Amino acid sequence: MPFRMTEMVGCDFPLFAFSHCRDVVAAVSRAGGFGVIGAVSYTPEQLEHELAWIDDHVDGKPYGVDVLIPEVQAVDKGVTADEIIANIPAKYRDFTRSILREAGIGEDTAEPQGGSQRPNTSLGQELLEVSFNHPVRLIANALGTAPPEMIAAGKKHGIPVAALVGAKEHAMKQIDAGVDIIVAQGGEGGGHCGDVATVVLIPEVLQAIEDAGADIPVLAAGGIMNGRQMAGMMAMGAAGVWCGSVWLATTEAETHEVFREKMVAATSRDTVRSKYRTGKYSRQLRSGWHARWEEAGLPALPMPLMSVLSEPVLRALDKAAVNGNRQAQELCSYWVGQGVGLVREVTSSGQVVQQFKEDFLAGYENLSQAFE
Amino acid sequence: MPFRMTEMVGCDFPLFAFSHCRDVVAAVSRAGGFGVIGAVSYTPEQLEHELAWIDDHVDGKPYGVDVLIPEVQAVDKGVTADEIIANIPAKYRDFTRSILREAGIGEDTAEPQGGSQRPNTSLGQELLEVSFNHPVRLIANALGTAPPEMIAAGKKHGIPVAALVGAKEHAMKQIDAGVDIIVAQGGEGGGHCGDVATVVLIPEVLQAIEDAGADIPVLAAGGIMNGRQMAGMMAMGAAGVWCGSVWLATTEAETHEVFREKMVAATSRDTVRSKYRTGKYSRQLRSGWHARWEEAGLPALPMPLMSVLSEPVLRALDKAAVNGNRQAQELCSYWVGQGVGLVREVTSSGQVVQQFKEDFLAGYENLSQAFE
Repeated sequence: MPFRMTEMVGCDFPLFAFSHCRDVVAAVSRAGGFGVIGAVSYTPEQLEHELAWIDDHVDGKPYGVDVLIPEVQAVDKGVTADEIIANIPAKYRDFTRSILREAGIGEDTAEPQGGSQRPNTSLGQELLEVSFNHPVRLIANALGTAPPEMIAAGKKHGIPVAALVGAKEHAMKQIDAGVDIIVAQGGEGGGHCGDVATVVLIPEVLQAIEDAGADIPVLAAGGIMNGRQMAGMMAMGAAGVWCGSVWLATTEAETHEVFREKMVAATSRDTVRSKYRTGKYSRQLRSGWHARWEEAGLPALPMPLMSVLSEPVLRALDKAAVNGNRQAQELCSYWVGQGVGLVREVTSSGQVVQQFKEDFLAGYENLSQAFE
Repeated sequence: MPFRMTEMVGCDFPLFAFSHCRDVVAAVSRAGGFGVIGAVSYTPEQLEHELAWIDDHVDGKPYGVDVLIPEVQAVDKGVTADEIIANIPAKYRDFTRSILREAGIGEDTAEPQGGSQRPNTSLGQELLEVSFNHPVRLIANALGTAPPEMIAAGKKHGIPVAALVGAKEHAMKQIDAGVDIIVAQGGEGGGHCGDVATVVLIPEVLQAIEDAGADIPVLAAGGIMNGRQMAGMMAMGAAGVWCGSVWLATTEAETHEVFREKMVAATSRDTVRSKYRTGKYSRQLRSGWHARWEEAGLPALPMPLMSVLSEPVLRALDKAAVNGNRQAQELCSYWVGQGVGLVREVTSSGQVVQQFKEDFLAGYENLSQAFE
């Protein structure tokens, strides 16, 4: 068996696609990679709907679900959305309203969402149960140590559990927790990340696994945008790669065309690791959004307050950006890693997988030359 | 020819060792790698002496010289050391004296060095001339765009000129300047660095070279500590690797045993990209030195003032650390990259090269498995 991941999760090519978009997940799996749907902000009913759609569009190919989300973890048990909203200081709400007003957008169109939303206590567990009613081949845990009930559920259903880590110390906790696959993401990656770079983190985590006498495959994440890098990571000992940003510049993605154009134009220096979206450090495309917050001198709110405040505003900016609002185009942003500097064009997810395969072979040939 | 660098600079194995220590340079070249002596702070007479020593100890193997140094570039033409010292604010000198006093070290033993030191105007050019009187096979330019006189001198002597870059934009300037080799160093590397990670920077620079219609080999730097990573970088398209930190944990290095022990104990999260040494961002082992400056709330002085103030103090701390002073051991630091987390033991430079060769083969085998 050429790839260990083929054995564990059934994909032909160990290219994992993390995406919030079901179209990307299905397209990647169909093309031979492995799509993982990020179930962030889904209710169990919504997840059921998404997974049913994927089942109908994935041609029987394997896929996975990423079920635990930072916001959920950060919410105390039994706290309602209305209670969270009540904790946002007035000057922060005034500030985000001023951003919208100055961009000519109705400032009351993007208020934090409260109302009927129920407490999140058992959401992760419910999402897991929904997932196991579908032919998922991988469960991933996005932040923090995989909880014992997740490990137990994975074992019961015979489905590997993967966990994301950004530092060797976190990997050691995941090894102890009993995860089956570790996704080691360097600080150059998009979204929540640490500050250890991928090229150091991968060998450091592999060494920690060896030192623990464990045998857990590692997927390399953070900055990986093409098959040559994938070949490089696998030469270093990774069992495959886990990518997020590269799918955002595809025609299937949840991103809008203005953001995709910003991705094509960006270099690797156009991202920022900032707390001004979720309250924890996450890497995003640098935009007027970050500049405005820095100028205002307001420290980021803790998680989950910061997301509850900022997400409706950022979605309003996205909408206005698509409708041609120049200020909104300048302000809009999204999570993306430094690999954005390698994006040359917007293409389809299937074509990205195909190009990865060709470049993976080219990477192998680059190295083979040394032995000719 | 298996390696392009063999053709260009005559080494068997494209592992470049940047070191301020002649012993490391000679040992690496003898073992089949390529040593590059960092001529930082050397006078032409000192460089002549070092190169003569290397010639006597390198067994005819090729080596190179890194001649331009940040401090030199930052000094205005004709400014003397005494004039530089006069610009250091009194409260900064009081602060560094207080660090020494509290560590029980004579506070007047580490004053900025002035006196007979002459202006640095033409130092780089003089160092170049000294170098060309020796059988050097590479001239490297550590910071900023390689000046036309360096390119011209390289061409005249038939010696390739390499330049370090930390961003695609800098690489484009070096391509225009006509350098022969680009060393692309990610922000995880030790010393002066940008913030783009190696795994993104290498493909981004390779793409910029291709877009420019140029044919310039790229050496990958930043976080590279072993042969598996080297194989990974070469799969990505690099022509070899350029390492600094890995040599600091060798028996030949200029580092002292206390610092080497700190390297072995450190993880990748124990470095900091800080201005509190040279005045520009450089990555160092995080120590009490950085904590003290951060607590004091004094912004770093500009280059070269910061180095002129801090280097004598840091050398006094090194000396006291070696003599068993606990506070000095806690305060001492040196430039090192995140790769410090991969250092497991102190060994010889020759053994490091040998281990790189074995791991390079292992990296190739890791990747080959995918094609079996």
